[in-house]
Amino acid sequence: MKKTLAALLLLPALYASAQKNNRESLVQYVKPIIGTQRMGHVYPGATVPFGMVQLSPETDTASYELNGKYNPDVYKYCAGYQYDDKTIVGFSHTHFSGTGHSDLGDFLIMPTVGTLKLNPGTADKPGSGYRSGFSHANEVSAANYYKVKLDESNITAEMTTTTRVGFHQYTFPKSDQSHIILDLMAGIYNYPDKTVWTYVKVLDDSTLVGYRQTNGWARTRTLYFAMKFSKPFTQYGFKKYDKRQVYGGFWGKFNQSKNFPEIAGKQIRAYFDFKTNEGEKVKIKMALSPVSMDGAMANMQTEAPGWDFEKVKNDGQVLWEKELDKITVTGSTEKKQDFYTAMYHTMINPTIYMDVDGQYKGLDQNVHKADGFTNYTTFSLWDTYRALHPLFNIIEPQRNADMIRSMLVHYDQSPEHMLPVWSNSANENWCMSGYHSVSVLADAIVKGNAPFDADKALDAAVATARHRSYEGIGEYIDRGYIPDEKTGVSVSNTLEYAYDDWAIAQMAKKLGKTDIYNEFIKRSENYKNVYDPAVGFMRPKLANGTFRAKFDPLSTINEGFIEGNSWNYTLFAPQDPEGLIKLMGGDKRFVRYLDSLFTMELPDKYFAETEDITRDGIIGNYVHGNEPSHHVAYLYNWTDKPWKTQERIRMILNRMYKPTPDGLGGNDDTGQMSAWYIFSTLGFYPIAPGSPEYAIGSPAINTASINVGNGKQFNITVKNQSEKNVYIQKMTLNGKPLNGLSITHNQIMSGGDLVFYMSSKHK
Amino acid sequence: MKKTLAALLLLPALYASAQKNNRESLVQYVKPIIGTQRMGHVYPGATVPFGMVQLSPETDTASYELNGKYNPDVYKYCAGYQYDDKTIVGFSHTHFSGTGHSDLGDFLIMPTVGTLKLNPGTADKPGSGYRSGFSHANEVSAANYYKVKLDESNITAEMTTTTRVGFHQYTFPKSDQSHIILDLMAGIYNYPDKTVWTYVKVLDDSTLVGYRQTNGWARTRTLYFAMKFSKPFTQYGFKKYDKRQVYGGFWGKFNQSKNFPEIAGKQIRAYFDFKTNEGEKVKIKMALSPVSMDGAMANMQTEAPGWDFEKVKNDGQVLWEKELDKITVTGSTEKKQDFYTAMYHTMINPTIYMDVDGQYKGLDQNVHKADGFTNYTTFSLWDTYRALHPLFNIIEPQRNADMIRSMLVHYDQSPEHMLPVWSNSANENWCMSGYHSVSVLADAIVKGNAPFDADKALDAAVATARHRSYEGIGEYIDRGYIPDEKTGVSVSNTLEYAYDDWAIAQMAKKLGKTDIYNEFIKRSENYKNVYDPAVGFMRPKLANGTFRAKFDPLSTINEGFIEGNSWNYTLFAPQDPEGLIKLMGGDKRFVRYLDSLFTMELPDKYFAETEDITRDGIIGNYVHGNEPSHHVAYLYNWTDKPWKTQERIRMILNRMYKPTPDGLGGNDDTGQMSAWYIFSTLGFYPIAPGSPEYAIGSPAINTASINVGNGKQFNITVKNQSEKNVYIQKMTLNGKPLNGLSITHNQIMSGGDLVFYMSSKHK
Repeated sequence: MKKTLAALLLLPALYASAQKNNRESLVQYVKPIIGTQRMGHVYPGATVPFGMVQLSPETDTASYELNGKYNPDVYKYCAGYQYDDKTIVGFSHTHFSGTGHSDLGDFLIMPTVGTLKLNPGTADKPGSGYRSGFSHANEVSAANYYKVKLDESNITAEMTTTTRVGFHQYTFPKSDQSHIILDLMAGIYNYPDKTVWTYVKVLDDSTLVGYRQTNGWARTRTLYFAMKFSKPFTQYGFKKYDKRQVYGGFWGKFNQSKNFPEIAGKQIRAYFDFKTNEGEKVKIKMALSPVSMDGAMANMQTEAPGWDFEKVKNDGQVLWEKELDKITVTGSTEKKQDFYTAMYHTMINPTIYMDVDGQYKGLDQNVHKADGFTNYTTFSLWDTYRALHPLFNIIEPQRNADMIRSMLVHYDQSPEHMLPVWSNSANENWCMSGYHSVSVLADAIVKGNAPFDADKALDAAVATARHRSYEGIGEYIDRGYIPDEKTGVSVSNTLEYAYDDWAIAQMAKKLGKTDIYNEFIKRSENYKNVYDPAVGFMRPKLANGTFRAKFDPLSTINEGFIEGNSWNYTLFAPQDPEGLIKLMGGDKRFVRYLDSLFTMELPDKYFAETEDITRDGIIGNYVHGNEPSHHVAYLYNWTDKPWKTQERIRMILNRMYKPTPDGLGGNDDTGQMSAWYIFSTLGFYPIAPGSPEYAIGSPAINTASINVGNGKQFNITVKNQSEKNVYIQKMTLNGKPLNGLSITHNQIMSGGDLVFYMSSKHK
Repeated sequence: MKKTLAALLLLPALYASAQKNNRESLVQYVKPIIGTQRMGHVYPGATVPFGMVQLSPETDTASYELNGKYNPDVYKYCAGYQYDDKTIVGFSHTHFSGTGHSDLGDFLIMPTVGTLKLNPGTADKPGSGYRSGFSHANEVSAANYYKVKLDESNITAEMTTTTRVGFHQYTFPKSDQSHIILDLMAGIYNYPDKTVWTYVKVLDDSTLVGYRQTNGWARTRTLYFAMKFSKPFTQYGFKKYDKRQVYGGFWGKFNQSKNFPEIAGKQIRAYFDFKTNEGEKVKIKMALSPVSMDGAMANMQTEAPGWDFEKVKNDGQVLWEKELDKITVTGSTEKKQDFYTAMYHTMINPTIYMDVDGQYKGLDQNVHKADGFTNYTTFSLWDTYRALHPLFNIIEPQRNADMIRSMLVHYDQSPEHMLPVWSNSANENWCMSGYHSVSVLADAIVKGNAPFDADKALDAAVATARHRSYEGIGEYIDRGYIPDEKTGVSVSNTLEYAYDDWAIAQMAKKLGKTDIYNEFIKRSENYKNVYDPAVGFMRPKLANGTFRAKFDPLSTINEGFIEGNSWNYTLFAPQDPEGLIKLMGGDKRFVRYLDSLFTMELPDKYFAETEDITRDGIIGNYVHGNEPSHHVAYLYNWTDKPWKTQERIRMILNRMYKPTPDGLGGNDDTGQMSAWYIFSTLGFYPIAPGSPEYAIGSPAINTASINVGNGKQFNITVKNQSEKNVYIQKMTLNGKPLNGLSITHNQIMSGGDLVFYMSSKHK
């Protein structure tokens, strides 16, 4: 039912694309519902590529506190939606895609009929508030389009977007009591005081503007809006839930309970009343701006001047079509659904963060104008430096360059004079470890995609890496490792700094800065300093130079690691597999170590500790749901058993990615998990961004054609591809044998033909 | 001691002025300390004419709540300073002058030595916090200069300002523990949650920027700052007092307790440490902006690029000299101190509210650029329409026109589409009754000082006066009065609306809009509808047309009046004294009524009800400390006993204004009380702004010369002027007899010579 409907509704987009070139639309394979169950933390709603608006349903308001206590459920609602839920609270305009932490959920809109209810009510009693029951049978989730029938009100809700505007279309029953509720208190990961301030002003009988200022994961964030209804409301009102009503006295001069045009406070809900006929459509345009209400209004007028819902939807789907078209694959419908939904998930974050006139709020809380670039935010770099940004260097080079320009203005505006760690709406979250933006800079520079100021990028990288007061960098510089006494994540940080330092060395080399190269290539060896040959693991080391006595390589908690135990993190030296293998006792022992990782039985007690993923996210003790091991399966390439890489990769692809709501084994992490899928499906992976080489894995499609720009295509053909034939017999590039187990960025970007010959038996 | 010091310190300014013209400096007569005791609610600190910065000491932080209860003392601290207090908490940058309600007190700075104490401590134990004892013997308060010695630390604090920059100079003893505290939690009329948000960023070892967002009398107000020290601090730190520390975890990556360059939250204090030698001066520049931190920095760089304290002080005093020079008087030193301090108090509010580049925050919460005018805020119009703006029409016509332009953009940006009632930092307080901005517009238009769009001004006035939902206007239009059931101030509102409507009629007439004239001249008669001939008083009237039974003409509380009882308000028809006298039974009865008002014994119980003033503010039952009766003493002019006006005016001048700390009998009300003093001292008063005529009173100086522009002077000579000779025998204007008891605006603005001949006997 869902699919048929979807197909029908997508016809116009299909048609548009058909006009463009004589082949099938790819948008039809995008299923945003994939990963909305359990740990995927993606949302089913509407957005355009890298859009500032992500308009999607909330199935729970995810209050941070429940009866005064921390609500453990809150984590489930990072994206506001859980597939197993039976009710929808409303539709808000901002969502992260696949994060393991949460924020946003701004400007929740909900249509209702009958007696006005300004409270959401509870999930077990949908009728008790404006919350409504719904069923997946009446739900459509597609690229830039979401539709659902609200059972309580019998209202059909549809939504689509432009880059900066959320476009709602509500089909009402006949009613003298039709309402649109705008809940400015609602938010994802909400708690008392998260909403610092709210301001709303009604301009006329169908227009309002305002803003919401929050103190959340983004500590100091203000989002402005301009909102227009397609039909004048007959009346409206605000309700203020603030404990203290300051100077209420002066306001006694007006009756503010109804049709009073302004309100400000911490806790506000608004309602707008209409009379509707059977089947009447009330449309809403909600434009956002990080800068001002005027900016939001200009964004609306520029991007969505009219009221044609279908046009906005189709224009957005054409944008998606263009992006998906960067890689065309052949294979089963399920395979294409997996592949193009993964492509879709890699093109949601980072998000555009500026008005149509180029103005944006900077990290310094001043308003700036982006000079010749598009400003982006939502950089989950600990995740995305690994495969997402390398993927952008192939299919989105201009965007990747602009993202780096955005990182450089972030650096300029940073009070700490550091590149972004986790950039969130003009705020720095400091989430996760390392300074991996340097890897993104290095990868772009080394691969020759650096239209930005590369010398400045290197300066920023070096300044960041020398910031002694940041999470043990001082000790790391002085001792070559971070002592366990300094931080609970001393080992993973030492390992990640060492990789980042190698990345800095690579860009220094490329830019001819020998002194910088020497300084950082030396630092990149530091990973060896936390390896304990006595136990064969990376291990917390004390300030006195001895290893900490208490140590459990299977445990993540208080063992010196984050989102990965020592078993996984011990393999984290992507910049130097040879050196790591030597360190760990050579080929045989290394292969045995890898095999154990994938095959051992992880005792139950450790699952509880494994963050962000379900059991499905784990194979043996290999944790795919978290990032630190994303390169691990490729490490067999540096041993005499590369066929094991090929075997493991296919197993991981099969077990971790399915075209179903529960199809993602862990948080998609703003596209990193999906980027891993895309590379691995194509047959190669950038295990060490900053290197021009990709490690060969085992391609999982029949053919693929990558649009590498300048009209060039890089075509991948996989002979005898099948679930069984996972082993590579040989490879040719442009007809010549491709020896070795890697391919370079230049070979890909030059276009050409890569042919894999597969077999069910390994060599 | 104080005066000598002051004189010494003022020498450079005197000198500058002496260069300008060969006569004495007038700045020397300005004593900001006048009115700082008890009810004057003025502040002793530094400011330039109409400056955005008012840098002045707080003797109490005036917490709105004390042990969880409303703190009745808070009212005393509207200006942050009470002369009788023995301690100073610190020096903040924004203060109202003479208001009866409070707000502001932004960015409190305090220097200390020894052990760092971040809490202010209590007045009874100055040493218990950063608060310090002081004595008036060590205090200098002058125009744009304030100095005090802080007893605890032995630090000499000096301050001066430019329009947008507060300039501090602290002379320290020798100490390894010298501190500057920046308290961002402190504020005037403070209470939990008043500070909505604070942000601070340290740019280098001597510069920081930030903002403070408050929810106070101005509901949604943000003030930005840029702050520079003349000497680098050795270290610094922030303390956050917020109950909830959101996402503290991520911040564990840094040691934030010291030298961490940014902080944001609701309750923040900062400290900056120095080593100082004996007598070393540490200077601070604190620039403000209503728009942004960048704006504040630009304001600082433009207005105070250097570190020369004396130059900034003297430049500001030269500005004052220019303003004071608009009227030169002869008389005793005390008389000049009264007169020029009154002049000073009339030129503090309204305040400039825009950056040097013309940008300002609008009432619509958007940033605007002032197009060809200076934007002002702090309009306490219920007070100032009476005499302050009329005074501006004589000596500050350009500023008055810009103030009206500011009111018109306020109107454009007002969600209610109304002219300002009480405009406070891009917010509308709705404080006090009426829509008296129309009087300011009318007075300027009628007097020919209307370089602004007069037709638009009339449209705005009419739209405001027709706003049916505003405080009974609908009923007022339908019935000709506001029913007692509608509001507790039905009578005073009816009377004030009637006057305002007359003002609208005057401007309509001037602009040739006959229909508008007819509509509003009719409305202006409405004052008669609340007069009860049976009792001879204005009296609350019920919706059914009968007068309310319960009625006490001496009481203010719940009697239908505000800041004045019926005895006073019954005389409020300044637009139509003849009509009022007729209404009240003719000359004899009217004179008897006036005499009783001034001479009756007001029973004790009514003093408690009389707001905003001390007993000193009352003569008999005539309340000068509040505004509704400011025209009353002049009403004898419309009877056969005008000499009684002359007698009363001199009595009021003598009893209500003294050159001493307790010299003001009531709140100065942003200059209205002082404007009354200036007009009455010169011998005439605008009893009905919107009329070109001034009522003659009794001049209280020997000579005065008003600079009316275009090089013209209007000279007033008072023959036989003395404390006894209060009665006018005759007047001549330019040598010709001036008959009647009024003089017109044109006669004044044409320049010339007005001569009063005084006598100890009335005619």
